[in-house]
Amino acid sequence: MKRIVLLRHGESVWNRENRFTGWTDVDLSERGVREASEAGELLRREGFRFGYAYTSFLKRAVKTLDAVLDKLDQDWIPVAKSWRLNEKHYGALQGLNKRETAEKFGDEQVLLWRRSFDVAPDPLAADDPRNPRFDLRYREVPQAELPLTESLSTTVARTLPYWQCEILPRLAYCDTLLVVAHGNSLRGIVKHLKGISDDAIAELNLPTAAPYVFEFDDESNVVNDYFLGDPEKVAAAMAAVAAQGKK
Amino acid sequence: MKRIVLLRHGESVWNRENRFTGWTDVDLSERGVREASEAGELLRREGFRFGYAYTSFLKRAVKTLDAVLDKLDQDWIPVAKSWRLNEKHYGALQGLNKRETAEKFGDEQVLLWRRSFDVAPDPLAADDPRNPRFDLRYREVPQAELPLTESLSTTVARTLPYWQCEILPRLAYCDTLLVVAHGNSLRGIVKHLKGISDDAIAELNLPTAAPYVFEFDDESNVVNDYFLGDPEKVAAAMAAVAAQGKK
Repeated sequence: MKRIVLLRHGESVWNRENRFTGWTDVDLSERGVREASEAGELLRREGFRFGYAYTSFLKRAVKTLDAVLDKLDQDWIPVAKSWRLNEKHYGALQGLNKRETAEKFGDEQVLLWRRSFDVAPDPLAADDPRNPRFDLRYREVPQAELPLTESLSTTVARTLPYWQCEILPRLAYCDTLLVVAHGNSLRGIVKHLKGISDDAIAELNLPTAAPYVFEFDDESNVVNDYFLGDPEKVAAAMAAVAAQGKK
Repeated sequence: MKRIVLLRHGESVWNRENRFTGWTDVDLSERGVREASEAGELLRREGFRFGYAYTSFLKRAVKTLDAVLDKLDQDWIPVAKSWRLNEKHYGALQGLNKRETAEKFGDEQVLLWRRSFDVAPDPLAADDPRNPRFDLRYREVPQAELPLTESLSTTVARTLPYWQCEILPRLAYCDTLLVVAHGNSLRGIVKHLKGISDDAIAELNLPTAAPYVFEFDDESNVVNDYFLGDPEKVAAAMAAVAAQGKK
């Protein structure tokens, strides 16, 4: 049985402050560090050991992965990092409080920005210092590929090539892989794996640091998927994420 | 100017207990975690930013690297891990206290085991559970290459190919590289870079978490080398390492 575990990073400082984060490189909160270690403990107890791990260019994901691997006594495994696993770019919303934004623009508009498939927030200005082209870490990415804002649709378009060309083919060499990334980059992958419609994907909310296991057959088809841990706690955490963008 | 920084991991739990560690996967001590962060702060203040980083398969090195990159706000850079950067394998001495071993075998014998070029401690028995062939992390290493003990000479023989084939060629693409490894795997590299004789290498002691900078010209020749930080503190730390294996 081949398995890939998808893991959203632990709570970040801006998750706690209920701000739109996107590509802002915000650190884990203390709770987030604890959540990451607990996810590692859970995976260890359930017998997971990984042959290869993937993460984004953002420290809240990298540090969650490091904490998980340390709990598994697997600090030594190879780790690949890619900007293609980054969170959805939230454009001009980055840094704004989600509730305050809802008070200004309405719950419905914020839900569109957060969860719809093809609505993107207003883009950053090209000369905004937050434009990724000014960030050294993206210097090897063709400028035409660097976003100033993203919808889930465009996030999927830059995430899936990495999934298809790098992550999934690795199952030929490793039975068990770990992908530590972000709420929306992972929602895009889950949408693809489960064939969720453009409308229905708005209802999927991934809680922080809850390991989501996908099982594959020898032809890399999904045969099963489930969250590890207490189902009631996972459901409550999903509902809390859904409620974040409301007045 | 091209630069490679060599960094020995922060103090480990077995450094603190003055035990031979070798390939035992011992964690950092609290002091070691602090040392790693301080090394990161020092590198940040001195303006170092890295394009690529290398480390061993042992968590005291991996976690030192993670702490340094976090202080540099460079959690995102690519990291390659290799067993070839592991500490010298200390064979049957692994786990023993250095001072007690000196009381039993004499200072001179322990100095030979610790610092001579071609004397190796007695090997582990082939069926010893600590034989690396029983450790999943080395499953892709040909068994003939996995040691049961090592001298500095045999350590150099398995470390230098990685230096020559992987690390040094990377200077063509990155100006500044970081290698976080171990007292003896790094002594072997320094011996090679500085042309230190088999006898004189016994006198070189690398302190934990002191960044050792090598500068290279465009033909990858060393043109300069120096430790970062307060020279008196570095000298005192070197003397303390030299004194570890005495009665």
